[in-house]
Amino acid sequence: MTTVVEFTKGHGTGNDFVLISDPDDRLVVTPDAVRAVCDRRFGIGGDGLIRVVRPAGSQRWFMDYHNADGSIGEMCGNGARVFAALLRHRGWVTEDSFTIVTRGGDRAVRISEEGISIDMGMPEVDESSVKVISNAHHWDAQAVFMPNPHAVVFVDDLEQPGSLLEAPVVESDVFPEGVNVEFVIVVDPGRRVQMRVHERGVGETLSCGTGVCAVADRAFERAGVQGPARIRVDVPGGTVHVDRTAESTLVLTGPAELVAEGRLSPKLSEAFHA
Amino acid sequence: MTTVVEFTKGHGTGNDFVLISDPDDRLVVTPDAVRAVCDRRFGIGGDGLIRVVRPAGSQRWFMDYHNADGSIGEMCGNGARVFAALLRHRGWVTEDSFTIVTRGGDRAVRISEEGISIDMGMPEVDESSVKVISNAHHWDAQAVFMPNPHAVVFVDDLEQPGSLLEAPVVESDVFPEGVNVEFVIVVDPGRRVQMRVHERGVGETLSCGTGVCAVADRAFERAGVQGPARIRVDVPGGTVHVDRTAESTLVLTGPAELVAEGRLSPKLSEAFHA
Repeated sequence: MTTVVEFTKGHGTGNDFVLISDPDDRLVVTPDAVRAVCDRRFGIGGDGLIRVVRPAGSQRWFMDYHNADGSIGEMCGNGARVFAALLRHRGWVTEDSFTIVTRGGDRAVRISEEGISIDMGMPEVDESSVKVISNAHHWDAQAVFMPNPHAVVFVDDLEQPGSLLEAPVVESDVFPEGVNVEFVIVVDPGRRVQMRVHERGVGETLSCGTGVCAVADRAFERAGVQGPARIRVDVPGGTVHVDRTAESTLVLTGPAELVAEGRLSPKLSEAFHA
Repeated sequence: MTTVVEFTKGHGTGNDFVLISDPDDRLVVTPDAVRAVCDRRFGIGGDGLIRVVRPAGSQRWFMDYHNADGSIGEMCGNGARVFAALLRHRGWVTEDSFTIVTRGGDRAVRISEEGISIDMGMPEVDESSVKVISNAHHWDAQAVFMPNPHAVVFVDDLEQPGSLLEAPVVESDVFPEGVNVEFVIVVDPGRRVQMRVHERGVGETLSCGTGVCAVADRAFERAGVQGPARIRVDVPGGTVHVDRTAESTLVLTGPAELVAEGRLSPKLSEAFHA
């Protein structure tokens, strides 16, 4: 007899996830199950699926993240905030500061009135030449790894790129596995920027946590900001902040909202007991 | 104190709905609430929202249907099947044949091993000239009202219209409020067709219950089929059947699947207590 699987749907600045509660590590996540649940018409729908699990013998919660297409994801900044929000909502964590485990390593989380903060680690910049071409426009871009790959482009106008975001072409040797492209305008140098993002294999999305961090790093650099600092980043799905710490890591702070919770159908639940 | 609102997500051939259980008619559905719940990133996501209600003093269940954009919908064949599936799932109806109430009138429902059947009423054909133009192709089309407007086009190839479905232009005097366009190929004359549909204001969708009926009517006519008959219609989201009854109404039969159920967040629930 199959146990019915409990889920929660949530989002961080419009990046949405189906969280599967599995505190006792009893479920199996297959690519087929992820695709079935994340399908927006035939399933619940989401950009990714996160199994919320505390492995046997561990005191820490593991964020078992999967992209909607069934592939494994190392880390997702918006997903991590929603994951942390669920841990608190369920009472599985009661502290304001705690550590979660991801495939990208342990990550520090802090919950405050501002939202949920997650330490995203240090950006790694590659000085190689990167060019972004779209709709007969050419720009020089900068390569940043968080550690996933980003090409950051500063532009004059974010509305005009509407169609530019459909299929930007990136010319560079440093992105053998594709790249996310961020188009950025500076609102207040080193303190506030606005961006849109084209995610590899997906298209334009409402938000991208690692992309926000890559942009923040380049915006600090462009404004000559040294050491600890904070910048506001407006994405199509909302507003987040990035703090650069004394240790040069980037901390992403923003909202996380849980919109619904319940049980998967017996048929969908069965897929997690393969 | 706001009562938490219970929901179910379900679909019929990929046409998906959020059903709000309100057996005692206590909730208020506003366009804002519909848009919030049907938003695929910030809410649960769906093509429409259906409040499931038994009005005071009535023995029948009312399908309070709303399109995802917040507008009122008279009738939706795929939604009606999902609605009927929920009534049975909850045990609110135990019969195999019963009547539901919609804004388009009372509708007979039958549940069988084949799926869920709903009587969609009689098609009304307008013999006026209708032309569909897309990507430099021109076709003669036929106007059918179910009672919502459809332009049915028989074509030779459904794959090639991939881009044709992006923005078909309809030239006719009989569709002052826009029209859904169905592209159809005949697989077995009068017995089986395959179709794709472009819904007004939406774009291509996986299925359209009234469109399927409009197509069935024109496919019977084209094959010279008189009186009661059955036809299979393959849509991108699955397969349905249409039976023409002795009373010349069209009965749509197909699957309905409930994929998840639970509770909306307090914030989303509040929107239904306006």
